[in-house]
Amino acid sequence: MPRPKGDHEARRRDVSEAVWQVLAARGFAGLTLRTVAAELGASTGLLTHYFPTKRALVEYALDLLEQRTLARRRAAGTRTAAPGGRAAPHGPGTLRDALLDILPMTPEAAAGNRIWVSSWDAALADPVLSAGHARRYAAGRDRLTERVAAAQELGALPPGDPAGIAAGAQSFVLGLVVQALFDPEAFPPHRQVELLDDYLASLSGRPGHHDGEGAPEGGAAGVP
Amino acid sequence: MPRPKGDHEARRRDVSEAVWQVLAARGFAGLTLRTVAAELGASTGLLTHYFPTKRALVEYALDLLEQRTLARRRAAGTRTAAPGGRAAPHGPGTLRDALLDILPMTPEAAAGNRIWVSSWDAALADPVLSAGHARRYAAGRDRLTERVAAAQELGALPPGDPAGIAAGAQSFVLGLVVQALFDPEAFPPHRQVELLDDYLASLSGRPGHHDGEGAPEGGAAGVP
Repeated sequence: MPRPKGDHEARRRDVSEAVWQVLAARGFAGLTLRTVAAELGASTGLLTHYFPTKRALVEYALDLLEQRTLARRRAAGTRTAAPGGRAAPHGPGTLRDALLDILPMTPEAAAGNRIWVSSWDAALADPVLSAGHARRYAAGRDRLTERVAAAQELGALPPGDPAGIAAGAQSFVLGLVVQALFDPEAFPPHRQVELLDDYLASLSGRPGHHDGEGAPEGGAAGVP
Repeated sequence: MPRPKGDHEARRRDVSEAVWQVLAARGFAGLTLRTVAAELGASTGLLTHYFPTKRALVEYALDLLEQRTLARRRAAGTRTAAPGGRAAPHGPGTLRDALLDILPMTPEAAAGNRIWVSSWDAALADPVLSAGHARRYAAGRDRLTERVAAAQELGALPPGDPAGIAAGAQSFVLGLVVQALFDPEAFPPHRQVELLDDYLASLSGRPGHHDGEGAPEGGAAGVP
């Protein structure tokens, strides 16, 4: 007798949660059918119904990581958005919020970033997975490009190819994520904000390296 | 009868080379006593003489990666340095050379960066290894800080805390490395140079996003 549909959906949610728990505890290096089955309290055989191959499991985990990261950032954005959701009149405005949302400013964001970094080795080792990650980062740059263009319209950023500025900004925050994960003492949240604000100030043509002069007005407002 | 010393040194070189070949072919995810023994054509038992634990092997491989990376960058620097080794009078000069040397501009540099990225997951999973990587990146920032200070003395960069500028520059290139490894078509060498030059131009207070106006004089000169 076939199970009712609701049962199947519930099982899928359980599988997602088990994959997530394994990622959080062990990263992609520890992601196997066996560890997910153990987390789920199920047999490896059941898991092969969902993931016929290791690559299918990794691909699923990468999608799950993307979904949960975007959901977390949307939630953080909702919490910190100005009333009415309008861009702040100072600095590059919502570009800054988007970049802050990527940085490991909270334990939750640090844990998510830790999983992303652990995904890079697995993804680079497989052309299909690597193409998926390339697509995800390209989509991230597209989202940043929109915010750069909006900041340019407001006059908060000078003219220039918004896609190039977005690619530079994405590089800057990804590298800062790596630095902060390895050396949280050298890169506590306030230092991350300082470095990001220096970066944004120099993009705006107002370099002022954390001497307090060039930082965008509003300082750390909007930090999650 | 004890083996002569020269024999021991030769064996150490063979072990280093075997570790390097495994890293190049499989990254840190594929680095085990078994794979290194197979590459060396030796028994796993012999390897445990050199590396009593998996961590000792990974630690050794991280040191080897650092040594070989610095040797490659020094060799590239020697090839591209101006006669007399003086900093070029334009732009941030040798800071730019140091940052270009990190980027995956050549197949050799791309392979080395691929190994670095594969090391991050292994290193972050272990506090001792993580501290080692933190120390390596701090040393890299110190080297960049010297170049930032030199560029400031030449008037090629405006005043400001050189350590902060160096931390920002290291973040920028590390993130660009990750982007370029995942999407070499979107980030071919000339695009990497363009983005780096835009970044350096904005640090110099001369933003000009690859419209040709703000790029440092000399363009791609000195690219390996």
